[in-house]
Amino acid sequence: MTLRTRLTEKLGIVHPILLAPMGAVSGGRLAAAVSDAGGLGLIGGGYGDTAWLDREFAAAGNRRVGCGFITWSLAKNPALLDRVLAHAPAAIMLSFGDPRPFAARIRAANSILICQVQSRDHALQALDAGAEILVAQGTEAGGHGGTRATLPLVPALADLVAARAPGAMVVAAGGIADGRGLAAALTLGAEGVLVGTRFYASAESLGHANAKARIAAAAGEETVRTSVFDIVRGHDWPDRITGRALRNDFTARWHGSERALAAALERETPRYKAAAEAGDAATAVIFAGEGADLIDDVPPAGVIVARIMAEAERALEAAARRLA
Amino acid sequence: MTLRTRLTEKLGIVHPILLAPMGAVSGGRLAAAVSDAGGLGLIGGGYGDTAWLDREFAAAGNRRVGCGFITWSLAKNPALLDRVLAHAPAAIMLSFGDPRPFAARIRAANSILICQVQSRDHALQALDAGAEILVAQGTEAGGHGGTRATLPLVPALADLVAARAPGAMVVAAGGIADGRGLAAALTLGAEGVLVGTRFYASAESLGHANAKARIAAAAGEETVRTSVFDIVRGHDWPDRITGRALRNDFTARWHGSERALAAALERETPRYKAAAEAGDAATAVIFAGEGADLIDDVPPAGVIVARIMAEAERALEAAARRLA
Repeated sequence: MTLRTRLTEKLGIVHPILLAPMGAVSGGRLAAAVSDAGGLGLIGGGYGDTAWLDREFAAAGNRRVGCGFITWSLAKNPALLDRVLAHAPAAIMLSFGDPRPFAARIRAANSILICQVQSRDHALQALDAGAEILVAQGTEAGGHGGTRATLPLVPALADLVAARAPGAMVVAAGGIADGRGLAAALTLGAEGVLVGTRFYASAESLGHANAKARIAAAAGEETVRTSVFDIVRGHDWPDRITGRALRNDFTARWHGSERALAAALERETPRYKAAAEAGDAATAVIFAGEGADLIDDVPPAGVIVARIMAEAERALEAAARRLA
Repeated sequence: MTLRTRLTEKLGIVHPILLAPMGAVSGGRLAAAVSDAGGLGLIGGGYGDTAWLDREFAAAGNRRVGCGFITWSLAKNPALLDRVLAHAPAAIMLSFGDPRPFAARIRAANSILICQVQSRDHALQALDAGAEILVAQGTEAGGHGGTRATLPLVPALADLVAARAPGAMVVAAGGIADGRGLAAALTLGAEGVLVGTRFYASAESLGHANAKARIAAAAGEETVRTSVFDIVRGHDWPDRITGRALRNDFTARWHGSERALAAALERETPRYKAAAEAGDAATAVIFAGEGADLIDDVPPAGVIVARIMAEAERALEAAARRLA
């Protein structure tokens, strides 16, 4: 069983499931596993470490995968895009910043431009850049994101795209960790889903084993959108873009006291770095979305894809049977 | 066409659509119109004005309707519950507070207990009270609500209810303004939806005509979760429960400066009250959810119900057709 959508046609994939390009988590092995299972794996370009990206594209072997970037970070090192395009990625996903300076090079390399957006204004900018796929990302997503929630954002952007650029399409992200979420995304007008946290807790992800175990044990309410991990790491994110992470001792101490943290970086940044290197989850960030409620194991990515598809089929058939 | 679910069976209604009991907006005429159209109308008990409630039950005539209360406010005037139960409501919905002190009287009056919840802990408390219907309310909802988003909250609570109280059921609320939202709710494991903002902008709602026009014109991004309207009105809401409203001059001035507002109430409260009485939308609150993107007119409530059902049918059939 599969679901045929405009996304599966556009990308030449079997299942309408994209791996979120999670920095330091979505490596080549995980991206390859998602592609092998019939979705499309996107390697996490993160803040742009050239050696890491070369290594992870090598780890993906000859599998068809893509890559995602933090746009405002890529803008500081635009040559990185050419380096990645040399690996012939199936798609490039740009999030958090103006995609327009990069669109022409992506098209010229025969790669597909995916733009992740958090609002109507972002969506208009992405369409202006010629994006063929818009990922409508809700605030329930793990990692960096905005304020709008997935359920009402997806149909609003589906209507916008249908009116302005009917050749383009919307993919849903944020809170989707099982097949019910995929089924819901399709009824809301999306052509597929982008899944992060569920794949973080997979066998192939580069996340620390402790982090995967914490995600599998965590509830959605244990997550919080916060800037404290960006402040302590010295990352200068745009206004209103925060990172959803599991609450820990560090958020308990600093979330809500951001100015005090910014004033204490000389002491706190070295402490944070040491804790992160030691894999100390009480201090180090574990990005995770509200879908954590729906995650309670750490299986291979291929098992996750197969489960999502089977659950989506059941959910759609059960809902359609209720029509009387 | 209709959708048969456990909610329609339980409540003896035709369509799985509940009117959110919006204080000062969901009066008897609107509740009756939703019930006439095949859903169930819930009159908005708000902060508990006895004369208003008697009048609105009278306005509902002999239609089968229910009533919703702000639980922490009802706890200050528990006799109000008996007054409303004397009108033989089909259901009583309790939100924002411990429902357990009221459950036995509701059951004894042969009314159905609906509890609106914003988290797993709230859900456990509602099940402990014997609630038969749990409304899982996402943060994208208009008016008062919590922090969790609808799309991941609904399946998490559906799993919880299935494990703990399989005779009970989940209804989805927050961001649902059209039939795509209803279809998504069903695939997520809900048995129906509770709809607020869409019915605010209806012919029968008691909202001011200016407020209805603003909702019809507004985008989801023009809404914000804030406490400033509660502070200026002197309502003491529980921690972490805020109200989603349209941004206006008042939120621009005070949102983020809550302490300053609390210190300026002697001047600001009379100003606010005068503005609210004058229908001045630049100052007065208009509660609205992120589904505002999907609302662009002010039709009769019966038209809204019929549209939601037709759209849900289309969305479910289109999604099911993608199964290959």
